[in-house]
Amino acid sequence: MEFTVEQIAFLLNGEVKGDKTLKINQLAKIEEGTEGAISFLANLKYEQYLYTTKATAVIVDKSFEPKNSFTTTLILVDNAYTAFTVLLQEYQKITANNKKGLEQPHFIGTHTSVEEDLYLGAFAYIGQGCKIGKNVKIYPHVSIGDNVRIGDNTVIYSGARIYANTVIGNHCTIHANAVLGSDGFGFAPQADGTYKTIPQLGNVVLEDHVSVGANTCIDCATMGSTIIRQGVKIDNLVQIAHNVEIGKNTVIAALAGISGSTKIGDNCMIGGQAGIAGHLQIANRTIITGQSGISKNIKKEGLKLSGYPAMESTDNLKSQAVFRQLPALEKRLREVEKKLP
Amino acid sequence: MEFTVEQIAFLLNGEVKGDKTLKINQLAKIEEGTEGAISFLANLKYEQYLYTTKATAVIVDKSFEPKNSFTTTLILVDNAYTAFTVLLQEYQKITANNKKGLEQPHFIGTHTSVEEDLYLGAFAYIGQGCKIGKNVKIYPHVSIGDNVRIGDNTVIYSGARIYANTVIGNHCTIHANAVLGSDGFGFAPQADGTYKTIPQLGNVVLEDHVSVGANTCIDCATMGSTIIRQGVKIDNLVQIAHNVEIGKNTVIAALAGISGSTKIGDNCMIGGQAGIAGHLQIANRTIITGQSGISKNIKKEGLKLSGYPAMESTDNLKSQAVFRQLPALEKRLREVEKKLP
Amino acid sequence: MEFTVEQIAFLLNGEVKGDKTLKINQLAKIEEGTEGAISFLANLKYEQYLYTTKATAVIVDKSFEPKNSFTTTLILVDNAYTAFTVLLQEYQKITANNKKGLEQPHFIGTHTSVEEDLYLGAFAYIGQGCKIGKNVKIYPHVSIGDNVRIGDNTVIYSGARIYANTVIGNHCTIHANAVLGSDGFGFAPQADGTYKTIPQLGNVVLEDHVSVGANTCIDCATMGSTIIRQGVKIDNLVQIAHNVEIGKNTVIAALAGISGSTKIGDNCMIGGQAGIAGHLQIANRTIITGQSGISKNIKKEGLKLSGYPAMESTDNLKSQAVFRQLPALEKRLREVEKKLP
Repeated sequence: MEFTVEQIAFLLNGEVKGDKTLKINQLAKIEEGTEGAISFLANLKYEQYLYTTKATAVIVDKSFEPKNSFTTTLILVDNAYTAFTVLLQEYQKITANNKKGLEQPHFIGTHTSVEEDLYLGAFAYIGQGCKIGKNVKIYPHVSIGDNVRIGDNTVIYSGARIYANTVIGNHCTIHANAVLGSDGFGFAPQADGTYKTIPQLGNVVLEDHVSVGANTCIDCATMGSTIIRQGVKIDNLVQIAHNVEIGKNTVIAALAGISGSTKIGDNCMIGGQAGIAGHLQIANRTIITGQSGISKNIKKEGLKLSGYPAMESTDNLKSQAVFRQLPALEKRLREVEKKLP
Repeated sequence: MEFTVEQIAFLLNGEVKGDKTLKINQLAKIEEGTEGAISFLANLKYEQYLYTTKATAVIVDKSFEPKNSFTTTLILVDNAYTAFTVLLQEYQKITANNKKGLEQPHFIGTHTSVEEDLYLGAFAYIGQGCKIGKNVKIYPHVSIGDNVRIGDNTVIYSGARIYANTVIGNHCTIHANAVLGSDGFGFAPQADGTYKTIPQLGNVVLEDHVSVGANTCIDCATMGSTIIRQGVKIDNLVQIAHNVEIGKNTVIAALAGISGSTKIGDNCMIGGQAGIAGHLQIANRTIITGQSGISKNIKKEGLKLSGYPAMESTDNLKSQAVFRQLPALEKRLREVEKKLP
Repeated sequence: MEFTVEQIAFLLNGEVKGDKTLKINQLAKIEEGTEGAISFLANLKYEQYLYTTKATAVIVDKSFEPKNSFTTTLILVDNAYTAFTVLLQEYQKITANNKKGLEQPHFIGTHTSVEEDLYLGAFAYIGQGCKIGKNVKIYPHVSIGDNVRIGDNTVIYSGARIYANTVIGNHCTIHANAVLGSDGFGFAPQADGTYKTIPQLGNVVLEDHVSVGANTCIDCATMGSTIIRQGVKIDNLVQIAHNVEIGKNTVIAALAGISGSTKIGDNCMIGGQAGIAGHLQIANRTIITGQSGISKNIKKEGLKLSGYPAMESTDNLKSQAVFRQLPALEKRLREVEKKLP
């Protein structure tokens, strides 16, 4: 495929600054651009590359003001990052390997119904009494337990494990080796120091447009459901414990852990390796930075929290700055003490 | 199924306060209770729901004293949480989907013996020379290497990987995609900056009643065994390195990591995302709170530790309290300095 | 097999102190040594066991000076740990179960080529258009997507997931349930609070002699490649995000996370549960201790960093020491304030 700079600018509702007739045949990062490539500049950390790039064209924000000269053609748009995302999506539509059909061997249990346009990879396993929607893709080695419901247009990659009674909405993506519905970590201590297993009878419910990363675990509820609301995006290696509820459009980065029965609000952002204790409520639009630890309810919406135990990020930064000077501060105090009787 | 409140009280050795003849047909959380449901109140965080619940009956501690009026029937027991656990177990016995038999296709290597009442899911793989006990359940896509021993009544969920020579006791539960026996992380640095792989010749041994969470990894020993003693409960996404030994009835929460050759005592509790360095000894009944880091031997039994590097939790709390005030403290010191000549 | 102490000393280029004619038939840890066993002493934490071990022979550093008497025979070498590693490797060569051949059933897509001495476990899946090198071992339940390249002598353990277009070099080891090539965590925020998925069109490239631990995830690049350079060793449950580049011979311990587009230098050491933010550059030979958090570029080579946010380890230790004394320090300041007018 080949397009002119003008055609691409038209698609992105952008304005060309340079030669509109140049030909584009690939996407590239700005530092790796070559002739025929189109790239973008959104993060100004990468501005230096604009002045040396060999990409034929670069998408930039309308508001961007170059500091040096350059040879590439610019396409000016409202938001360069968003515009480039549109290009990526168009590119993917053209190039996607659209898997369909049932590979052999596979296993489908009794009383399970599937709809049109299913892709079922070899060695995939679907239990009894399941309902699988339209245009679903189930890659090789996926296992789906009994009585699972999967909505339309959902993709489940290799080795994901969907325990019995899980409900998955439409347009969800479950990455490789993710586990939905494993037992909650519930054990009742006995007088002799041993633990009795508490049966975990609930399930996991994913609403629409949820994305679950590779090797992430979402435990089933003890009773009722662990609920992931629509639009939630979960990265790799995240732990979501039993009876947790994650509000709409919340994003959770890799290696974060949410303990049992905690309810996270809508549109929160939880950083990598952050931890949230159990039985808490976290308000909407809370931002929790990476490696932070939350041990109390967060009632006010829109706070940005850091540290362990977490406090407002600006306060944490100030305390951290003094922490770095603690040996000097202690010395200053000693000097003061010496001067006093 | 349907039972009267009186029948359930009899099962739990409890006392009814209200109408004994009411009918119960489901279990529910107290905030979600409806007619016909029985619930429980153990954590007083949830006390408010007692006064509004629509559950027909609620199990409470004998010692509990209500502050407001309510309409539900109470069952008074010694320990509401334990009593409810008993109910959950009874419920599970009645409703459990008791899988049995060998689904096709599956793979069983030569010289491998299996006992009565085995469930072997489709696409499960058992290597050569293995011994599988009675009433074992092996779900689809499990792979079991050569010369593995598995005791009676053990359940292994989909996609768990059991490397060659692993030994698993009776009544164990291994959740989906857990890995037992992967190589320890052992590499010998060479003069040229590269690393030579140190062969890992040992194995993993799980004693009885051990539970291993989804996507958890337990590495084999370099020589000898990585040993998980009886009654140990391990959550999801936990890393247990080579030659570690975990004492009886210790519980380990999600995303915690135990480094090589460390020995953890009996009845310890290790919080989520906690980390323990290598070659350490941790005394019995040590409690390590979430996200803490342990870098020294813990010789005294029964300590509760927090922070990084960890210190006694009460001390850590006090230091954390001052940490939050550090900018103010630094300012106070400046004021003092100004006043001095 | 049985060897004399003299034969082993010859292999290791070592000097015997004691009876050269004794027979050795197994390897053991020094604290578990029995008659016929050979062990080693490298870490002086274990020195006490030398004086009580029942091992027939113990390998020690030439420079080691015993403090007490002992009964075992010594083999003196330049580096006891390295020498023992050589022994382990020789032992493994003799005892390794060298799997070969194609087990049934398996799945190989069209236009895929394989070379001599392939081991392909039952239920393994290889997509279309792949190229698999010589003497490769692919264990049961591995899934390999379309257009994947795998070099010679590489081993892929059960349940590893290799997404389409991944490139794996020679002599690599991929442990069970590792995931290579899952989508980068890229979502563009929309005005209504939802997120649009950014297509991830790149791939993952592993150079030669790379080791990837169990349940570790390496995301594909948005465009271009996520690159793991030769000799890199990655432990279990590690997260490597999209467009990351890891330099030669860098080692990364369990549960560490590297965020998107960060470039790590050569010969770095990254401790367990450490976290590194996105879009950073980390200089060669940087050491990052366990649980540390890196949020800035590290430009100077060879630094050792600790804490969150990380600072030089020696400085962090000093600040930590004062942190432990913060309540006392605050009290001292109050005393000072009282004495002033």
